[in-house]
Amino acid sequence: MHIYEEKKFNLLTLKGLSEKQIDVHLGLYSGYVKHVNHLREQIKSLKEADAEKYSYAIIETRRRFGFEFNGMRMHEYYFLQLEGGGMALDENSNLTKAISKKYGSLDGFIAHITEIGMSRGIGWTILYKDVEHNTIHTAWISDHELGQLGGMPIIFAMDMWEHAFMIDYLPTEKKQYIEAYIANTNWKVVENRFTKAT
Amino acid sequence: MHIYEEKKFNLLTLKGLSEKQIDVHLGLYSGYVKHVNHLREQIKSLKEADAEKYSYAIIETRRRFGFEFNGMRMHEYYFLQLEGGGMALDENSNLTKAISKKYGSLDGFIAHITEIGMSRGIGWTILYKDVEHNTIHTAWISDHELGQLGGMPIIFAMDMWEHAFMIDYLPTEKKQYIEAYIANTNWKVVENRFTKAT
Amino acid sequence: MHIYEEKKFNLLTLKGLSEKQIDVHLGLYSGYVKHVNHLREQIKSLKEADAEKYSYAIIETRRRFGFEFNGMRMHEYYFLQLEGGGMALDENSNLTKAISKKYGSLDGFIAHITEIGMSRGIGWTILYKDVEHNTIHTAWISDHELGQLGGMPIIFAMDMWEHAFMIDYLPTEKKQYIEAYIANTNWKVVENRFTKAT
Amino acid sequence: MHIYEEKKFNLLTLKGLSEKQIDVHLGLYSGYVKHVNHLREQIKSLKEADAEKYSYAIIETRRRFGFEFNGMRMHEYYFLQLEGGGMALDENSNLTKAISKKYGSLDGFIAHITEIGMSRGIGWTILYKDVEHNTIHTAWISDHELGQLGGMPIIFAMDMWEHAFMIDYLPTEKKQYIEAYIANTNWKVVENRFTKAT
Repeated sequence: MHIYEEKKFNLLTLKGLSEKQIDVHLGLYSGYVKHVNHLREQIKSLKEADAEKYSYAIIETRRRFGFEFNGMRMHEYYFLQLEGGGMALDENSNLTKAISKKYGSLDGFIAHITEIGMSRGIGWTILYKDVEHNTIHTAWISDHELGQLGGMPIIFAMDMWEHAFMIDYLPTEKKQYIEAYIANTNWKVVENRFTKAT
Repeated sequence: MHIYEEKKFNLLTLKGLSEKQIDVHLGLYSGYVKHVNHLREQIKSLKEADAEKYSYAIIETRRRFGFEFNGMRMHEYYFLQLEGGGMALDENSNLTKAISKKYGSLDGFIAHITEIGMSRGIGWTILYKDVEHNTIHTAWISDHELGQLGGMPIIFAMDMWEHAFMIDYLPTEKKQYIEAYIANTNWKVVENRFTKAT
Repeated sequence: MHIYEEKKFNLLTLKGLSEKQIDVHLGLYSGYVKHVNHLREQIKSLKEADAEKYSYAIIETRRRFGFEFNGMRMHEYYFLQLEGGGMALDENSNLTKAISKKYGSLDGFIAHITEIGMSRGIGWTILYKDVEHNTIHTAWISDHELGQLGGMPIIFAMDMWEHAFMIDYLPTEKKQYIEAYIANTNWKVVENRFTKAT
Repeated sequence: MHIYEEKKFNLLTLKGLSEKQIDVHLGLYSGYVKHVNHLREQIKSLKEADAEKYSYAIIETRRRFGFEFNGMRMHEYYFLQLEGGGMALDENSNLTKAISKKYGSLDGFIAHITEIGMSRGIGWTILYKDVEHNTIHTAWISDHELGQLGGMPIIFAMDMWEHAFMIDYLPTEKKQYIEAYIANTNWKVVENRFTKAT
C-alpha cells in the first residue's frame, strides 16, 4: 500500500499571518496526511480480520476518504501558494485574461473570491479551471469534501476553517484574514497551475 | 456568460439496460445541463436586481453549484463510457497494470467497484487517477457532490441513483444493474482517460 | 442492547399509489430497521474486538447513525400517515389555525409543501412543530439526515426519494406523486401529532 | 412573520473557559439568531419580488434553514447547560438510571461523550432521548445540521466547532476543552430535559 508523505513548505515571514498561526495550521495538515494513511490501513486491517463481518464498517470508513484526502490535498495547495511570498499575477498571462473576461478586472476577481470566502460556515474557497471552455469557476466547499467540482483541476484553494485564522484573528475579523492571505499569495503559482492544467 | 450545451451520445442497444431506462436517464441529464445554466443566470439576475439586498440568497444559491455541475459532468462521463458498447481493457495497458498492482486482478477490481456501488444510499462510484503516484483511487460520492476528491482527474463514473436503474430493476436488484452497467462499459474509454490524465 | 423492531402498518388500497409501489417501499423501510440494529452491533463488535485499534472505524461508523435511524423513523411517520386513508383536517383544529396563520389557507399550505417537495435532488419534505411559538416549520431534508431541525417534533414526513414513486411514476411525474401522496394522507394523524407535541 | 429573539444567559465565572471565549461565542450565537430571521426575510422578499423567476434561489435558500436554525437552537442548549454552574447528576434520577443501563456508569458515559466529541472535523456531540424506549442516543453532528436524529428531543448539546475553544485552547488541546465544558455543565438542566421529554 502506497503511503502518503507529508510535504515540507518553504515559507518566508508573512504579513498578517503569525508564525504560531502557520505552525498550528501545519500541525493540522500533518494530521490529515496521517489520517489518509490511517483510514486506508484501517480498511485493510478490517478486511484482513473479517471482510464479510465488518463490511458495513469498511464501507462507512471508506465514505470518509474524501474528507481526509481533501483535508491533506487542499492544505498542500494552500501552503504551496504561500511559497515565494506575495507576488502579483502577470498582466499578460492567460489566467489574467480568463479572469478579466469573467470578472471584469483583477479587483472584481478579488472581490468575488472574498465574497465566497465570507460564505456562512467553515470550508474552502476553491478556484477550478474548466479546461474545455478555457475559463475558471469558483466554488465554496463545506468541510473539505462537500461541493467539490468532480474531475476539475484546482488552481487556488483558500482555507476558511476557523483554525486557519483564530490564532491571529477573531471570528468577526474573518475578512481581514482573507485580505492577509490573498496579499501573501504567490499568484505565479496559481498562474502556473492554470497553464499546466489541460 | 458561457452557456453549457447538452452533449449527444452515440449509444448502441445495450444488454440489461432498456431503451426506456436510458431515455429517462438522458432526460434527467438534460435537466442538469439546464440547471447549471439556470443557477448561474439566477445569480446574475439577483446581482443585477440588488447584489447587496440579495447577498444571502446569492451565496446560498452558489453553494449548490457542485450539485448541478457534477450532476451534468458525472452523467457525461457515464454515458460516454457506454459509447462503442462493452469492450474489455487492453491487458498490457497502463491502466491494467495499475489495477493489477492495486487490486490483484481485473476480477478483484470489478469486485471492488461493485462493493463500493453497493454502498448504502444513492450516489456514484468514482474512479480517480492519482497522477502523482500513478495509481487509482475509488470513492463513493453521495448525491453528486458529497465526497468528491478535489482536483483529481476522473476516469470512470457509475451512477448509483435510483433513477439510473428503477425502470429496469427493483431496488433489491441493484447488484444486477451494476453487472449490466459494467458489462456495457467500453473500458477503452476509461483507459484513454487514464493515459491522458497527467 | 435494545433492538429496534419493524412496525406493521394497516394500509388500505390507495389511489395513485399501487400495491407494488407500497410493497417495494415497505421492503426498503425494513432494510433501515435492520441496518439501525446492524450499525449498533457493528460498533459493539468492533469495540469487543479491539476498541483502540478500530477507534477510527468505530467513530466513522457511528457518524452514519443519523442516516439509518432517520431512514427508519421517517418511513414510520410516512406510512402511519397513510393509515385510515385520506382524511381532511378538522377545520377548527389547532393545526388548521396554525396553518391558516402561516400559509393563509389550506390551499396555500398544500402549494407550499408541494413546492418544497419539488426541491432538486432526493430527500424529504418535513413539517415540524415549533412548540415554543406554537407554529410550524417546513424543511427540505437531503438524504434522510442532512438538514433536520434538531430537537423539533415532526408532525408530517413526505418521502421524495426516487424509490418512493418510480414504480408508479417517471421522474418527470414527481408532482403527480406528491398529489397522490397528499390525497392519501390521513391529516387527522398529523393533527394528533401537532396536538400531542408539547 | 414571527421573529426569533436572542436569549440571554445567566452565566457565572467558569473554570477553564475564559470570559473572552464565552463572549466571542455568544457573539456567534447572536449571528445565528439574526440569520434565522434574515433567511426567512430573504425568502419573503424574493417571493414578493418575483416568486416564479426566483423560485430556484428561494428553494436553495430554504435548504439552508437547518444550518441557521440549528446554529441558533444548539447554542441555546449549550449555554443553558452552563447556567447555575457545574452540578452533578442526581444519583437516583431517571437519567442516571438510563445512563447506567446503557453505559455501565457515569464514568463510562463521560468517556463515551468525550470519544464522540473527539470525532474528526467540526460539529456537535448531541444527546437525544428516545422516548419510545426510555433510553438515550448520542450522535455526532457535522456542521449544525448534518446527521441530526429527526424528531428526537435533545437533552444535551456540546459544541465542537473550533470557535468554541480556540480562544482558550489549541486544536491539539481539544480534549481539555471537552473536560472543561463537561465540568462546567449543570447536569440538573440535562436531567430536567430528560424528565420533561415525553
